[in-house]
Amino acid sequence: MTQTATDGTSDGSAGTLEERRHGEVDRPSSALAKFQNDPLPLDAGIALPTWQIAYQTYGTLNDTRSNAVLLCHALTGDQHAANRHPVTGRPGWWDNLVGPGRPVDTDVFFVICANVLGGCSGTTGPASIDPTTGHPYGLTMPVVTVADMVRAQHRLIERLGIERLFAVVGGSMGGMQVLEWGATYGKKVFAALPIATGTRHSSQNIAFHEVGRQAVMADPDWRGGRYLDEGTKPKKGLSVARMAAHITYVSEAALHRKFGRALQDREVVTYGFDADFQIESYLRHQGSTFVDRFDANSYLYLTRAMDYFDLAAEHDGLVANAFRGSETRWCVVSFTSDWLFPTTESRRIVHALNAAGADVSFVEIETDKGHDAFLLEEPEFHRAVRGFLTGAARAHGIAPPAPAPAPAP
Amino acid sequence: MTQTATDGTSDGSAGTLEERRHGEVDRPSSALAKFQNDPLPLDAGIALPTWQIAYQTYGTLNDTRSNAVLLCHALTGDQHAANRHPVTGRPGWWDNLVGPGRPVDTDVFFVICANVLGGCSGTTGPASIDPTTGHPYGLTMPVVTVADMVRAQHRLIERLGIERLFAVVGGSMGGMQVLEWGATYGKKVFAALPIATGTRHSSQNIAFHEVGRQAVMADPDWRGGRYLDEGTKPKKGLSVARMAAHITYVSEAALHRKFGRALQDREVVTYGFDADFQIESYLRHQGSTFVDRFDANSYLYLTRAMDYFDLAAEHDGLVANAFRGSETRWCVVSFTSDWLFPTTESRRIVHALNAAGADVSFVEIETDKGHDAFLLEEPEFHRAVRGFLTGAARAHGIAPPAPAPAPAP
Repeated sequence: MTQTATDGTSDGSAGTLEERRHGEVDRPSSALAKFQNDPLPLDAGIALPTWQIAYQTYGTLNDTRSNAVLLCHALTGDQHAANRHPVTGRPGWWDNLVGPGRPVDTDVFFVICANVLGGCSGTTGPASIDPTTGHPYGLTMPVVTVADMVRAQHRLIERLGIERLFAVVGGSMGGMQVLEWGATYGKKVFAALPIATGTRHSSQNIAFHEVGRQAVMADPDWRGGRYLDEGTKPKKGLSVARMAAHITYVSEAALHRKFGRALQDREVVTYGFDADFQIESYLRHQGSTFVDRFDANSYLYLTRAMDYFDLAAEHDGLVANAFRGSETRWCVVSFTSDWLFPTTESRRIVHALNAAGADVSFVEIETDKGHDAFLLEEPEFHRAVRGFLTGAARAHGIAPPAPAPAPAP
Repeated sequence: MTQTATDGTSDGSAGTLEERRHGEVDRPSSALAKFQNDPLPLDAGIALPTWQIAYQTYGTLNDTRSNAVLLCHALTGDQHAANRHPVTGRPGWWDNLVGPGRPVDTDVFFVICANVLGGCSGTTGPASIDPTTGHPYGLTMPVVTVADMVRAQHRLIERLGIERLFAVVGGSMGGMQVLEWGATYGKKVFAALPIATGTRHSSQNIAFHEVGRQAVMADPDWRGGRYLDEGTKPKKGLSVARMAAHITYVSEAALHRKFGRALQDREVVTYGFDADFQIESYLRHQGSTFVDRFDANSYLYLTRAMDYFDLAAEHDGLVANAFRGSETRWCVVSFTSDWLFPTTESRRIVHALNAAGADVSFVEIETDKGHDAFLLEEPEFHRAVRGFLTGAARAHGIAPPAPAPAPAP
C-alpha cells in the first residue's frame, strides 16, 4: 500500500518518496526564516548559533497586523497544515479545519504554521546539516524542549513583523506549545486554544515514548544515531515505535468499531504470524508509511521534548503561576475518549487558569475517536473552534468575513 | 540490577542464569509427563506425535481423588506457582495465594500447576528439541491455541488418575484456560475461578501483542526464528516487547502513584536519552530481566494463542452456548483498574453463564493496581478466593482443615 513513486511533483523535483522527503530537511518547499550567527538559546544551556525555521502561511495579514493565527503542530506533524503536501501531494493535516470559510477562516485570519525545532521538515533538527561539520547533526544536536520550540516560533513572529498574535491554536504537543506561549509570551497572545493536551506528560505517556525510543535505538541500522552518515535507516525500529504510539492515539471503542476481531482478506486464521487480523494489517501499514515520512532521530527528540514538558515545574510547582495576570482569552478542549490526554488533564489546565483569574472556557467533546479526534472531521469540535475564534475576533475588532452572496433567485 | 550469577542452585547445577533457564526447556526441574507416540491433536489441524508436559504439585491427593485444584498460569508464568524457582531461587508467582493455610490451601487441596503447551519451562514449545530433527522446533512448531493448552492439561489430569477436578483457577491467559476447561470439560470441573480475563482478545489487546511480535521479529538476532540453532538471541526486540506489554499490566494511577515524573538518581534532567525518569529505568529493567527468563519464540506463540482465543466463535457466535448445561460453580473476578481485561469483559462472561443457567457469582475488586493485581497481595481478592473455594469445598464434601490448636495459656 506504500507508494515508491518516482514521478516528479508539481515543483518538478524527482526521486523516490523517501529522497524527496529527505530533501525537505535542509531545503524545504516552504517559506524559510534563516538565522545566521543569530543564536537561539536553548533550555539545555547551549545556544544554536545558526538555525532556520520553515513555515507556511494562508490568508492575508491585515493592515494593523492584528489577524495572525499561529498553528502549532503535533509530534509527527509539519508546517503543511492546509496546503497540499509538497512530497505526497496529500491535503494538509488540518485541511478540514483551516481554509476559506472553515473554522480557522483564512478569509479572515492570516494563518502561520511552522515546523517545530527538532523536526525534520525544514526547521533545524537532528537530520539537518550542522554548518560547522557539513554532516547531519544526529545526536550532536542539543535536546530541545517545548519552550525552545516556542522561543524559535517567537523569533519567527518577530521577523514577520507581528507584534501580537490574534490566536495560538494546537493539539497534543501543539497544545503544549499553546500553553507555553500563554505562559511565556502571554501579552503577545490575544486568544489561546489548547486542544487534547496537558500541563505535563504523565508517567504512562513517558512509558509509551520510552518504548518507542528503545525500539528505534534497538535497531542496528540506527548506528548510534549516525545512520544518515552511514547510509542506513532504522526502519524496523521506527515502525515498531509508530505502531505502539498509534495504539495510544485511538480509543479502544474506535478500534473495536473499526476492526473488532475481523480477519484480513481471509475466512479463517492461518495459525501463523502473518497479519490475520485487520488490526494487525492496519498497524503494520501505520508503521511502514511513517518510516517513509519521518526521521528517526527527530522522533527521539520530539518525544523527549514532550516527556520533559512540565509547566508546574517551570513555575515553582504551581501551574497557576504560569498564568498569573494572563489577559489572554482561553478555550480548552478535550475529547471524552482520549486516554493519552484525558479530560482530567484539560480540567487541570482550566483549574490553573481559573486560579490565576484568567478568562477561560472549557469544552469537552463527546466522541469515541480518541486522542486523534482533533485531526478528524468532528462537527461539534469544529463548531467550538469556530465559535470561540469568531467571538474573540469580534472582541479584537477583526472584521468578520463578508456574508456569502445570496443565491440568485 | 540483573544477576549473571554462576553459582550453583540448590540442585547443584551450574552455569549462567540464562544457561540454567535454557536447561529447563527440555529437562526441567519438575515432574514430567511424557507422551511418546501418543499424539496430541491441535486446532491447527496437525498433531504433535511426541510431547511432554512439566508440572509441580503441592499438598496431598485425598483417597477419593476429589480435592485436586488445577492452576493455569498467565502469558509469562510457569509451573512454579508456589515453590522456589529452580533457577532464580525466588518464591513462586502465586506464593502469596497458594500454600498451607493460604486461600488456595494446600493443607486441604492437592494443587497442580503445569507449564502451558507452547511455553519454555519444560512443556513442549518452540524452544524444545523436535525429536524428528534433533534441533529446536523454532517456527516449525505448530501454532497452538488456548484449547490446545487445555487439551494437553486434560491428558495430564487423566494420567494422574484424576477423574474430576475440584477446581480450575487462573488469571489473564490462565483465566482463558479456566473458561475453556468449563466449556470443553465442564463435567470434570466442580468449581471454576476465572480472574481478570475475557471470552476473547479485544482489537486493542491484539494490537499490543502485534507490536510485541513485530519488535521481536525486527531484531536481526531473531534470525527468522532460528536463533537457538544460530547461537544468537533477539534480546533487544524481546525487551522492547516486554516493555510495551508491561505498560498494559499496570494502571495509569499505579504508575502515577509509584513513579509520577520522579527522576532516577538525579536532581535535574540530562537533556539526553538516558533513563532520566524512574519509569524509564523501571521499564528497561522489566525488559532486560524478562529476556533472561523467557524464550522469544514462546512469546510469539503464547501471544498468538491469546489473540486467537474467542469462545463465541468456537460456539456458533454465542458465548452462552459454551456453557449450556454447565454444572460447574463459577466465580468470576475482575479488578476495577484493569484496562487490559476491564470489568466489562468479566460481565460478559457472567451474562453468558447466567444465560446458560449456570451457577455464577461475580466479584469486582476495587483496586488501582491494574491487571497485575491478581498476582499481588490484594486482601479483598484473597478473601474472595478463600470464600469461594471454602464454600465449594464444603458442597463437594472435602474436609475443611483442622482448626489451628489454641495457643498455650
